[in-house]
Amino acid sequence: MAAPLRIAVAGLGTVGAAVMQLLEEHRDLLSRRAGRPLVVTAVSARQRGRNRGIDLSAYAWYDDATRMAAESEVDAVVELIGGADGVAKAVVERAIACGKDVVTANKAMLSTHGTALSRAAEDAGVALRFEAAVAGGIPIVKALREGLAANRIERVYGILNGTCNYILTTMRESGREFGDVLGEAQRLGYAEAEPALDVDGIDAAHKLSLLTSLAFGSEVDLGGVYMEGIRGISLTDINYAREFGYRIKLLGVARVTEDGVEQRVHPCMVSIDAPIAHVEGVQNAVVAKGDFVDQSVYEGRGAGARPTASAVVADLIDTARGHRVPTFSVPARELKRLARAPMERHRGEYYVRLMVVDRPGVIADVAAALRDERISLAAMLQRGRDPDEVVPVVLITHETVEAQMKRALDRIARLEAVSERPSMIRIEAL
Amino acid sequence: MAAPLRIAVAGLGTVGAAVMQLLEEHRDLLSRRAGRPLVVTAVSARQRGRNRGIDLSAYAWYDDATRMAAESEVDAVVELIGGADGVAKAVVERAIACGKDVVTANKAMLSTHGTALSRAAEDAGVALRFEAAVAGGIPIVKALREGLAANRIERVYGILNGTCNYILTTMRESGREFGDVLGEAQRLGYAEAEPALDVDGIDAAHKLSLLTSLAFGSEVDLGGVYMEGIRGISLTDINYAREFGYRIKLLGVARVTEDGVEQRVHPCMVSIDAPIAHVEGVQNAVVAKGDFVDQSVYEGRGAGARPTASAVVADLIDTARGHRVPTFSVPARELKRLARAPMERHRGEYYVRLMVVDRPGVIADVAAALRDERISLAAMLQRGRDPDEVVPVVLITHETVEAQMKRALDRIARLEAVSERPSMIRIEAL
Repeated sequence: MAAPLRIAVAGLGTVGAAVMQLLEEHRDLLSRRAGRPLVVTAVSARQRGRNRGIDLSAYAWYDDATRMAAESEVDAVVELIGGADGVAKAVVERAIACGKDVVTANKAMLSTHGTALSRAAEDAGVALRFEAAVAGGIPIVKALREGLAANRIERVYGILNGTCNYILTTMRESGREFGDVLGEAQRLGYAEAEPALDVDGIDAAHKLSLLTSLAFGSEVDLGGVYMEGIRGISLTDINYAREFGYRIKLLGVARVTEDGVEQRVHPCMVSIDAPIAHVEGVQNAVVAKGDFVDQSVYEGRGAGARPTASAVVADLIDTARGHRVPTFSVPARELKRLARAPMERHRGEYYVRLMVVDRPGVIADVAAALRDERISLAAMLQRGRDPDEVVPVVLITHETVEAQMKRALDRIARLEAVSERPSMIRIEAL
Repeated sequence: MAAPLRIAVAGLGTVGAAVMQLLEEHRDLLSRRAGRPLVVTAVSARQRGRNRGIDLSAYAWYDDATRMAAESEVDAVVELIGGADGVAKAVVERAIACGKDVVTANKAMLSTHGTALSRAAEDAGVALRFEAAVAGGIPIVKALREGLAANRIERVYGILNGTCNYILTTMRESGREFGDVLGEAQRLGYAEAEPALDVDGIDAAHKLSLLTSLAFGSEVDLGGVYMEGIRGISLTDINYAREFGYRIKLLGVARVTEDGVEQRVHPCMVSIDAPIAHVEGVQNAVVAKGDFVDQSVYEGRGAGARPTASAVVADLIDTARGHRVPTFSVPARELKRLARAPMERHRGEYYVRLMVVDRPGVIADVAAALRDERISLAAMLQRGRDPDEVVPVVLITHETVEAQMKRALDRIARLEAVSERPSMIRIEAL
C-alpha cells in the first residue's frame, strides 16, 4: 500500500472533532477505499486544553495554524476555522503556497475569495476541495463537478439553509409565528443567538455563489446574489400558500438568462407537486437541470458535525487518490466573468397579500395599479366580508417583470385603504 | 493540453447515438472539464447502414467489436451492446486484456459477472466504470463509491425501474388496472413488448445487486436477490394503500442484518411522508443511509438515451483524467462474500387483503391463524356489509417474521370463506 496521506487539521470545533472521530473509527475501511492510510499528523485550534472528547496526544500540536500549514511533514491541510478572512484564509493561502492539498468547509471564505484561491491552487498544482461547504453531507459539489460534468447546466437551485427550512416547516406545522419558532430553534440549538447569517439568507447566498460557479464555470460572484430572508414571512402567508397549492421555501436559485446570470436567495412559493416542496425540517436539497440529464435532485442533511465530516473525509479520500479536477468544474484561469442579470428584470408570477379596509372600490384601485403596469391577475381572493374592518386580500399574478411588480406595489402601498406594507412572495416555476 | 482520449464505441442504439451526439455537441466544454479532448475514433454496431441521425464517416468502422476493443489506437472502450454474455462480455474482456479502460451501461452483464470483471480490470490496472448501469443519469454510483465513501453504509434502497413506477403511478392516478396501463405503456414505448424484465423486477434486481456491492464492499450476488414483480398489484390495493397513508412502490432494498445481507425487490407500502413516496412516473430515486451522513436521497431520470449518455460521458471524463477508484468501492480482490439473509427471516409489517364471504365467524378464523403464528394485528378494515357476498377485508400487522406470515397466509387461504389467494404487500419502514 502507498504511503499514508499526512493530514493537518486546523480548527477543532464540533466538525473538526467529528472528522477526527470518523478518521479513527473507519481507519481500515478508509485505507481500502483510498488506497492508502489517511493519517492525522498535526492539529491546531485556539484552545489546546479544551475537552473535545478526543485524545490529541498522538498529534503534533500547533498554536499557529499557519505555521502548521507549511510543515514539510504534512501532505494535506483541512481548514475548519471558518470566517471569510483572517486565520482561515491565511492557512489556506500558506498551504497552497507550500504545495499542500487543501480541504475546507468554509463557504464564507470561498464565496468571497473562491476565484483567487482556486487560481492560486491550480497554479500551484494542488487541489482545493470544498464538498462540506455546500449542503453538508450531500455530495452536490462532486455531482456538479463530476457526475453531471457531461451536461451544460441550465439551472441549479435548492434549499440551502436548514435553519430557515426548519423554521418555515415548523411555522406551517404548528401554526406559530416566525419570532416564536425562531426563539424555540435558538433554545434547541438549531439557530444561532445571532441568527442573521441564517434567516437573512446570507449563508444560503454563500452556498449559492459556489453552486453557480460549479454549474456555469463562472467566477464566484457573491456580490451578484440578490438576497432576501424569511423574517417577513407570516403565518397568514403560509396558510394562504397551502390554500393555493404551494409551500413557502427559502430557495437559492441560479440560472442563465438572456440578461446574464441570475443569482437570488428569497422566499418562494413552490408547487406542492414539486419534489422540493416535500423537503422539510433541517433537510437540504439541491436540484440541477442539465441539457442531457434533465432534472436531478439531491437531498440530505445540510448541516451537523457528522454529515459535514462525511463530506470533509470524502474530499480527503479524493486527495489521497491524487484525483485532479478543476476546482469549479473548468480550469480556474478559464472561469468566465458573467454579466449579472438585474433582479429588476426577473420574470415570474407573484403572490401578493394586502391588508385593506373592506369597502367598495378598493379592489378597483388595486386592479388599476396592476393594469397600469400591464400586470395581469391570475387569481384574487378575499375570504369573507367585514365592512370597514381590515381584511386580507390575496392576489396571484400571471408572469410579469419584477420592476413592474415593484412599481405597482409602491402605488398600491400608498392607497389610503391599504393598511400595511403589502407582502410579496415570488412564485417559482419548477 | 494533454493528448486526446481515444474512444471506441461498441453499440450504436439510441444510447450510443446519444453518446456520440453529446461528445460532439459539448466538445469544447468536455475538453476543459476533462483536461484533454474526448475523441471517438472507432465505432462498431450490428448494421452499418442503419440511419442513426449521426455521420459515422469520420470514424473507423468495425464489424467486429471485439477486434475494435483490441486496437492500439484506442484508449477506452464504451460497451453499449447489452446482454449478460455474448459479444458484450467478450468486448469488455478483450478491452481489459488489452489494457483499455472500459465504460459500460450493461447491468445484466455486471450483475452476473461484475466480481470477475472488476478483478480482471483491477489486475490489469484499467478502470471499469458503470455509472449508466444504475438509475440512468443519476450519479449514484459515484455518490456511493466517492461522495459517501467516508461512511459505513447501513442501507441502500430505491425505485430502480421507471417502467414499474410509471405503471404504479398511472394506476393510482387514473384508477385503471395493471393490464390496461401496461398495454398503454407498451403503446407509448415506456414498456417493452416483452415486459418481464421490467414488471417482474429483474431489471431492478440487476441494479440492486450493483448498489449492494458498492454499498457494502461485497461480491456482486444477483442470485441472492429476492424478486417479486408488480403483476399482482391491483387497483383495490392501491386504493387501500391511500386510505392507510401509504403508496405502493416497487423498491429494491439492500441492508445488512444479523443474518447477512438482505437484497430484495418487491412491491412495498411506503408512508406518504417518506420522500420516496413522491417519486412518480418514470423517475428513479435511490436512498442511502450512512453512519455519518445519515440519509441522503438521489432522484432523477432513470432511463432514456440522453440521461444515460450523460452518465456514460461522465465516466469518460473520469477516465480521461486518469482517476482510479476501486470498481465496487473497495479493491476487487477484497470484496467479501457475505452471507445471504434468507427472506424467510425478513422482519416487517405486512398489509394483507382477503376476499372473504361476509358472514359471522370468518374474522375469528383469520385472527386465530394469525394468533397461532404469534402475529399481532395493528389494524383491520372491512368497509360496509354485504351478507353472504364476497367483500374485501384488509389487515395491517405489527412487525413479524416473513416465515410466520407465510404460514399464516397459507392457512388463511385454505379457509372455506376465503375466496381467492390473499394479497400480501410488505410495509417498508423508511
